[in-house]
Amino acid sequence: MVYVDNAATTWPKPQPVLDAVYECMKVYGANPGRSGHKMALDAASILLYTREMLCSLFHVKDPFRFIFTFNCTDSLNLAIKGLLKPGQHVITTSMEHNSVIRPLMRMEKQGVEVTIVKCHETGRVDPDDIKKAIKSNTRMIITTHASNVTGTLMPVEEIGNIARSLGIVYLIDAAQTAGLIPMDLTELPVDLVALPGHKGLLGPQGTGVLYIRGGIEPETIREGGTGSQSDSIYQPDFIPDKYESGTMNTPGIAGLGAGIRYLQQQDQHKLHLREKKLVKLFIEALSQIEGISLYGLADDSFKTGIVSINIGDKDSSVAADILDQKYGIAVRGGLHCSPLAHQTIKTEKKGVVRFSFGIFNTMEEVKYCVKAVREILRM
Amino acid sequence: MVYVDNAATTWPKPQPVLDAVYECMKVYGANPGRSGHKMALDAASILLYTREMLCSLFHVKDPFRFIFTFNCTDSLNLAIKGLLKPGQHVITTSMEHNSVIRPLMRMEKQGVEVTIVKCHETGRVDPDDIKKAIKSNTRMIITTHASNVTGTLMPVEEIGNIARSLGIVYLIDAAQTAGLIPMDLTELPVDLVALPGHKGLLGPQGTGVLYIRGGIEPETIREGGTGSQSDSIYQPDFIPDKYESGTMNTPGIAGLGAGIRYLQQQDQHKLHLREKKLVKLFIEALSQIEGISLYGLADDSFKTGIVSINIGDKDSSVAADILDQKYGIAVRGGLHCSPLAHQTIKTEKKGVVRFSFGIFNTMEEVKYCVKAVREILRM
Repeated sequence: MVYVDNAATTWPKPQPVLDAVYECMKVYGANPGRSGHKMALDAASILLYTREMLCSLFHVKDPFRFIFTFNCTDSLNLAIKGLLKPGQHVITTSMEHNSVIRPLMRMEKQGVEVTIVKCHETGRVDPDDIKKAIKSNTRMIITTHASNVTGTLMPVEEIGNIARSLGIVYLIDAAQTAGLIPMDLTELPVDLVALPGHKGLLGPQGTGVLYIRGGIEPETIREGGTGSQSDSIYQPDFIPDKYESGTMNTPGIAGLGAGIRYLQQQDQHKLHLREKKLVKLFIEALSQIEGISLYGLADDSFKTGIVSINIGDKDSSVAADILDQKYGIAVRGGLHCSPLAHQTIKTEKKGVVRFSFGIFNTMEEVKYCVKAVREILRM
Repeated sequence: MVYVDNAATTWPKPQPVLDAVYECMKVYGANPGRSGHKMALDAASILLYTREMLCSLFHVKDPFRFIFTFNCTDSLNLAIKGLLKPGQHVITTSMEHNSVIRPLMRMEKQGVEVTIVKCHETGRVDPDDIKKAIKSNTRMIITTHASNVTGTLMPVEEIGNIARSLGIVYLIDAAQTAGLIPMDLTELPVDLVALPGHKGLLGPQGTGVLYIRGGIEPETIREGGTGSQSDSIYQPDFIPDKYESGTMNTPGIAGLGAGIRYLQQQDQHKLHLREKKLVKLFIEALSQIEGISLYGLADDSFKTGIVSINIGDKDSSVAADILDQKYGIAVRGGLHCSPLAHQTIKTEKKGVVRFSFGIFNTMEEVKYCVKAVREILRM
């Protein structure tokens, strides 16, 4: 199996990730932050360890600014619903995943005003268009860091500067970039970052994170036992407990810590260059084949590991099936939970075949993918 | 280590649970329900497998009536916030965990009327008191199935019959009973059941389930990508997708399926009797020691595996620390995320030392615990 569906979830996971999950369950699988016995303390320690790994990767001082969630979608729901109130205005883009758009459509029904700024056909939003959409009641701007359909990177720094200058909260969806694109949160003008644990950070599924900058205080969306202030029937008001109710996914978080540590142990610049090289090779090879449609910016400096294409007139789902069944290549076809993004790049009918490369893919695999695409085109 | 903190999370997990989690990550760790390639289909299959295991354990026909969540607290939040609207009235008890009380306190601020019915000092609620609390705007009754503080079982059948006769929705919190107390959902008059995956069902942490009876349709509390209706910016309206947004905890759910299968392979009647015997032995031995306070009903037919005590005048946290450090016995001391329950049983000052037995505990361990308690009393 040539696995090039890393934008859905990365695979394989590094061996230390599997080992960390297993060890947590086997050796110290108690409930963190509840009881005070040794196993429970060990479980609590691993949560702190993973927060510290996140601090180190994203240049954050306070480990409790990272909130553990169910998944990146849960992180986005917390940020969006915790901050937006009826009568307020939010700006987002036409390249967003449904993890942003669907909660916003829900909020719209409750009286939140939503503006969806149209992006260029390459997938990029013009920061000026964001600026023009701002109104007196604009509370929040939400953009993806990179599109899950095209891999196109958004101008988050420019947008963040606009937001900051006007006191508007800026939330980014880093589903496709966390662990892939270096992010220094002391520099980057963003207030909230939603992160999946199981993509570029190499952790297991069932792990999400929300970074919340100091001074930003969303309301809770999930209350319950926190192991703290057990004498109170009200949710604690301090982080991370305020937002972390019920038993956390301790084994998953242990795996996430191991995933980030694995990343940190590599030469990240090299990893990044290597991935760029794979993408560049793939794009260059495909560009030379007549009948292949490529989406998103051709300039690879604006890309993550995603390359979305269509093969002649073939429906993308059909092409994806052939890639799987005839070639053993795992990609995603069809529509990618981002209907507006497909409209933006004009693929709402046939979808796209998305190849998404990860750190374990090789040059040989890229060449094999090119060969397969070429053959399918001829069919 | 003698682990008797199974009410916080069960440990050890059966070996097939560890193996299922590991195998999922290692062999077919793709994203279920997104792409259509073989690994993604295998990942989707394991979700269905676990739903079918749940069906078999709880006697439910439609596997999609089981919604996967982050944890039992997340399940409770979905049921509570998805159903209660401002102006409506909800009845609960003074033995509830903060996973019920804290969301309700949040809803109270939004205009939901909350009545907390006081329970007997043994922890049991009188169904008549529930009945008396019902008003014309009562939408929902919520009770725990068994208290996490005392193990006391609630008269859920009687309460359910009252609720059903009046068309009131009945939600039970099965955090302490799922997998321990047989539950036939074709018979039991409950509408929603919140379940943790990582306690009696023997799965890993990071897994929760909400059973929703047909005809009950909570609003969503988390919207996002579902891999379905990808051409729509609105949340799908069918189960389970309506309530399952973002990437599920596939390895955790694989482990949960293995946990339930393990349970099913045992003689459940025998397991249940064995656990009762351990609890009975423990209670009988402690009852004979002067200076030990026992909480909850002494009649073991009304108990789960929980036995909560205090040892002389010792603060429960101090006693729990001694048990851990001197005897290697893992229990939970202090307050147990249930302030009202502690008020009910009059332990709000010193808390309780909670011993909670699981299917892997032995008679020898029980005897060792009795010996330790006796020695601590003499200190």
